[in-house]
Amino acid sequence: MFSAWAVAGIPEIVAGIDLAAVIGDAISQTDEGLADGDILSITSKIVSKAEGRSVAAEDREDAITAETVRIVATREYPGGVTRIVENRQGLVLAAAGVDSSNTPDGTVLLLPLDPDASARALCAAIRTRFGARVGVIITDTLGRAWREGQTDVAIGAAGVRVIDDLRGSTDAGGRALNVTLPAVADEIAGATDLVKGKAAGLPVAIVRGLGHLISGLDEPGARALVRPAAQDMFRLGSDEAYARGFAAGRTDPSP
Amino acid sequence: MFSAWAVAGIPEIVAGIDLAAVIGDAISQTDEGLADGDILSITSKIVSKAEGRSVAAEDREDAITAETVRIVATREYPGGVTRIVENRQGLVLAAAGVDSSNTPDGTVLLLPLDPDASARALCAAIRTRFGARVGVIITDTLGRAWREGQTDVAIGAAGVRVIDDLRGSTDAGGRALNVTLPAVADEIAGATDLVKGKAAGLPVAIVRGLGHLISGLDEPGARALVRPAAQDMFRLGSDEAYARGFAAGRTDPSP
Repeated sequence: MFSAWAVAGIPEIVAGIDLAAVIGDAISQTDEGLADGDILSITSKIVSKAEGRSVAAEDREDAITAETVRIVATREYPGGVTRIVENRQGLVLAAAGVDSSNTPDGTVLLLPLDPDASARALCAAIRTRFGARVGVIITDTLGRAWREGQTDVAIGAAGVRVIDDLRGSTDAGGRALNVTLPAVADEIAGATDLVKGKAAGLPVAIVRGLGHLISGLDEPGARALVRPAAQDMFRLGSDEAYARGFAAGRTDPSP
Repeated sequence: MFSAWAVAGIPEIVAGIDLAAVIGDAISQTDEGLADGDILSITSKIVSKAEGRSVAAEDREDAITAETVRIVATREYPGGVTRIVENRQGLVLAAAGVDSSNTPDGTVLLLPLDPDASARALCAAIRTRFGARVGVIITDTLGRAWREGQTDVAIGAAGVRVIDDLRGSTDAGGRALNVTLPAVADEIAGATDLVKGKAAGLPVAIVRGLGHLISGLDEPGARALVRPAAQDMFRLGSDEAYARGFAAGRTDPSP
């Protein structure tokens, strides 16, 4: 069994604030506190704010371009164009993760530069303060191929296994579970979205009861959940891949 | 706050069994029981078994072909080929969801024919038995584009909202949350994978504390989470789209 709840009392976050201290103070005010094996789920937005990753809204398009490693797909809609891109962290997402909701007027927020490093620093500070072996996940809200709606996933992680590698385990009938790699950090991120909520302004949640997933701070972070583009069957949008093929076919010299 | 736990004591499921009765009996033996607002998460495998969706293992490739509406991508590996396809339910997944782990020797399992209908029947029977307004989600384990590992998602649902439509809501700063459609049924499916586990043989879990998502039995099921191919920027694998474009380009008559 596990439980998940949002932490009340996180104030508005400003650039340069000691985020671990702010989160720790809020947790200390709760009845539940923090215990060995707990996993903190922190919305990336407040990490970005603390790290000063804000830019002026009129620079939004330039910011998206700067955060973009590679354009994956584009789609026009009335009044604009959506760019699905691979960003600095390898994430494939709309607008490179540049966010304009719940931001101070006239500004937009970029994702943390290195969410795994942010998670490690937060995890180390919170472990020290509480003397508890906890994990930290930094979450963002992403769309998916093939499915409607968004889910929260882990874009940064420390002190928690991101994939529960079951290769080598067997099923109840003794057969090998040879392709099962549950992305547990993403499942935890999604679970905590159910209590944080988008509109409620609750950017931190705690999961209690999954202590078997806690790890050292030197284990791979959420970057390990990113499939390299070269191994990805969907590294390019269907229309974009078709157009590249069409152009190559028109100039193909072979008979 | 919500809690999630697996239900112990679900026996091996055979074709033709009254699955709602079996699940109800197991729940009745637990201390937690079942309460208004609870959501049951049921692994599709036991629904398939109860519905007799088993075929001989030697017919596996034919079964995949029969379940396939459309091939999305293929990739060769040493000793075989993985087919990513759109299946009858509109799901994009490997091997059309045909499953050979945790199945009786010599057999493979197909997905339920209509998982939303299965969920409705289970939900109606369990609501009647317990006199409680509960929801039912039927889950399967799917790979994703762009990200490593798998997560559990909802392939059938009844009595629970699958998307928490926040369009029209505002953020803490009063701005419209105009593109936020959390796929809560998928997030619940992923959350319960964390307690059901792949190797543990625990196919049913209960989530308590998300009663605001409970709905009538006539609301859209998990099919509403499937994006129609025509609206999908990743409806075809990159290599497959490129190849189609290349072929079209070679025969393009325009100057």
